[in-house]
Amino acid sequence: MKLTVKDSDIATGGVKVVLLNQKDAEKLDLHHLDRVRITKGKKTCTSVINIAESTRAMPKGKIGLFEEVIDKLNAKQGQKIDIKLAKKPESVSYIRKKLDGKELKKEEILQIIKDIVNDELTEIELTSYITANYTKGMSPKETFYLTKAMMQTGTIIKFKQKPIVDLHSIGGVPGNRTTMIIVPILAAAGLKIPKTSTRAITSPAGTADTMEVLANVTHGPRELKKIMKKAGAFMIWGGSVNLAPADDKIIKVESPLSIDAEGQMLASIMSKKASVDAKYLLLEIPIGPKVKNRYQAEKLESHFKTLAHKLKIKIKVMITDGTQPIGNGIGPILEAIDCLAVLQNAGPKDLREKSLRMAGEMLEFMKKTTKGYDLAKEILETGKAYEKMKQIIKAQGSQIKKIEELIPGNCKFNVKAGKTGRIKEIDNYSIAKIARIAGAPKDKGAGIYLYFHKGDKVKKGNNYYTIFAENKTELDYAVEIGKKLKWGIKIGR
Amino acid sequence: MKLTVKDSDIATGGVKVVLLNQKDAEKLDLHHLDRVRITKGKKTCTSVINIAESTRAMPKGKIGLFEEVIDKLNAKQGQKIDIKLAKKPESVSYIRKKLDGKELKKEEILQIIKDIVNDELTEIELTSYITANYTKGMSPKETFYLTKAMMQTGTIIKFKQKPIVDLHSIGGVPGNRTTMIIVPILAAAGLKIPKTSTRAITSPAGTADTMEVLANVTHGPRELKKIMKKAGAFMIWGGSVNLAPADDKIIKVESPLSIDAEGQMLASIMSKKASVDAKYLLLEIPIGPKVKNRYQAEKLESHFKTLAHKLKIKIKVMITDGTQPIGNGIGPILEAIDCLAVLQNAGPKDLREKSLRMAGEMLEFMKKTTKGYDLAKEILETGKAYEKMKQIIKAQGSQIKKIEELIPGNCKFNVKAGKTGRIKEIDNYSIAKIARIAGAPKDKGAGIYLYFHKGDKVKKGNNYYTIFAENKTELDYAVEIGKKLKWGIKIGR
Repeated sequence: MKLTVKDSDIATGGVKVVLLNQKDAEKLDLHHLDRVRITKGKKTCTSVINIAESTRAMPKGKIGLFEEVIDKLNAKQGQKIDIKLAKKPESVSYIRKKLDGKELKKEEILQIIKDIVNDELTEIELTSYITANYTKGMSPKETFYLTKAMMQTGTIIKFKQKPIVDLHSIGGVPGNRTTMIIVPILAAAGLKIPKTSTRAITSPAGTADTMEVLANVTHGPRELKKIMKKAGAFMIWGGSVNLAPADDKIIKVESPLSIDAEGQMLASIMSKKASVDAKYLLLEIPIGPKVKNRYQAEKLESHFKTLAHKLKIKIKVMITDGTQPIGNGIGPILEAIDCLAVLQNAGPKDLREKSLRMAGEMLEFMKKTTKGYDLAKEILETGKAYEKMKQIIKAQGSQIKKIEELIPGNCKFNVKAGKTGRIKEIDNYSIAKIARIAGAPKDKGAGIYLYFHKGDKVKKGNNYYTIFAENKTELDYAVEIGKKLKWGIKIGR
Repeated sequence: MKLTVKDSDIATGGVKVVLLNQKDAEKLDLHHLDRVRITKGKKTCTSVINIAESTRAMPKGKIGLFEEVIDKLNAKQGQKIDIKLAKKPESVSYIRKKLDGKELKKEEILQIIKDIVNDELTEIELTSYITANYTKGMSPKETFYLTKAMMQTGTIIKFKQKPIVDLHSIGGVPGNRTTMIIVPILAAAGLKIPKTSTRAITSPAGTADTMEVLANVTHGPRELKKIMKKAGAFMIWGGSVNLAPADDKIIKVESPLSIDAEGQMLASIMSKKASVDAKYLLLEIPIGPKVKNRYQAEKLESHFKTLAHKLKIKIKVMITDGTQPIGNGIGPILEAIDCLAVLQNAGPKDLREKSLRMAGEMLEFMKKTTKGYDLAKEILETGKAYEKMKQIIKAQGSQIKKIEELIPGNCKFNVKAGKTGRIKEIDNYSIAKIARIAGAPKDKGAGIYLYFHKGDKVKKGNNYYTIFAENKTELDYAVEIGKKLKWGIKIGR
């Protein structure tokens, strides 16, 4: 059937969609969410159909093309195109199989992930797959195949330097920027660490956002190989090398449902490590934000170990306390200041100690010493870690900045203690929310600077923390939300 | 935040959606699929946000409103509106609970169904609920609550006539129009039968489509009470009285995934029976299209009985052979001809016999006789059933039509046997597909007229069946598809 193109001026950001009038759909015996093959001259693509019930939304004889389809066919308003019923992707039948509780095979999982990466699945199909993985669970075998599939459908980088070491934290703790201290320490001890990080999605800063204050974090695979040769380590934004791209698309469905299928999380983290050919991994599981107690943390540890073993990655897991923010700064610039300060033998004690402990564990794990903490401390105190950091920043093509050059937002609000007492709780969620509303991470200078931690004594009228923003509107909004959240702080005796 | 309205000229047919530019979303810390409260003057509504990455799709400071939102706010291009973060509906947390495998309470299921009916859930949320019901299953209690919730969120009709009798077939068998013969027989015997039926979704005709050939099938609750008073029975389209409206919205998700969660199906059927206050139900489970074997059929029977018991509905289940079409005509007019012929003591034997057996079972179940088949046969042969049918048609406000007045489509194609032999198989799916492509049910005269059934001998060159269409294009397309499907017929020795 020939139809006339109407540009719908809308994009799904996902699967390709065309809009048909109901009468035209009936003629072709097409239903909502059926696939059609669209042809314009020699160009062709497969799309999912939505059916408009009113002729106002879509007149008879016309076909509404979403931006993705317009681009693919290079179609223009008023041109004629041809449509035909097309089959559903094969992967839909594998999703059905998973819904029925059957274990999926290697090739089946690979096909599903390929179709996710190529935006071939509708939101309903993708959601049913992710929900089924959550409700039915994944076998260790399936998790392994999923990890491999996520890795294979993205970029894989093999560095000449061996062995490759990597680190990761399950996350959810504001200000927990240990990576930017541990990486220089380990690299100064001779370990090879190509560290890719994410940007924040729901937190006030990801390591990529914070590192970006100090250096360019967007580099392609070829540049990364040069940087490794120069510095033996880097800290960049993983998105710039397209590692395991299925992950972002899966998160888009998981996040509005607030589900975090364990197998999915394992695959998401480990596929990115496998993509840079890591052979040794330090993994932090903080108890608090995501993992609720030690029992859960230990169960998760054992699942990580099983998967790591199959991937031939040696893994060292550290279970830590994640019940309050780490360091003083929260937000890209404020965290970058903390990190630089620690590297120069100042800065927040908790951030320094945690970084030294973690770096120490890894040094022992890699058999560099039997006294890891002491070696890490020596590397930090003699300035070798800071020298390595400067070398990494230069290798990433950037100038070295002094702490004084890092300026937080110039709109400030001091949050004062309403009574005297001891700080019982600093709520990660509330602190993150206030910092985000103030503009972090999009405004690098926005965020929160904490003056106290849990257990500290505070007097009425003392500043708990300062909120920084880059403009007055956002500061006011953050203060408004902060009040509602009672500033995220609880005082006891 | 104030934004300027841009009419997006598109409708979802479901949840209300607005489109924001990424920068504006970041300012408000809003994410894809978050809810916002939109206010224009005194009007307000809650919508889900989609985020446009390019300013081409949505410029900064503007907000794209889908038709449903435009209508609700009576908003116009260029007007200013205000948006604020809103909470997710409560039911999303109940869906989470179901995802985690916990049994839902009565009020929780009711809230989910209310939100489905009011289009408050996103496609991701709705899909995750339906998928979880499928993968986790529903307890008998949950199925009961779901049935009640589906009933309560739609129209409920209480008739004065008592007791109310109803019938239903699980479906999937082309031409299986027994309802239009059983209802007049039972009503002639004095039973009260307010029969609501569906229109075809994937089949060539639903009972509502076929009955519409003979009478008006769209009636509101008040008219239905009058019709019952006049005729003691009716056969109408259920959609005109809005019984259990959640059903259609759930089918929209189930159908592209080809899942049919058992608990969902039980609730969908039984909620509609409970909505007309039925106390006795004849249920047909054909083995073939949906239920694969006797074991499955008997399991399903027992689940129907459990649910019916809780609803205080007495149920009689008949398990039948559904492996081939019933009757000769397939498509609204062709089926209506078969039904009228049987009522006038002619017509296809298989349709007549099956209808008599089923009507007979119900007469015995209702204790009208101990020889149900004989009584049904007597009612049919003495013309009482046909008289009742005419009474029903008149009560539904329509003129009586003679068989000669029912004219199938005037474009025909005869499908001829390629060899001599015995018919081994008539494939329901292929026959239905060919009839639909020929135009059924939208073109009432389109469809297929069968000359043979399974087991019949056929000679090379005999007509298997005739395809009818109302125009040449659709006939040609049906013939093309028919060839590909090998006409849906297999010949053996």
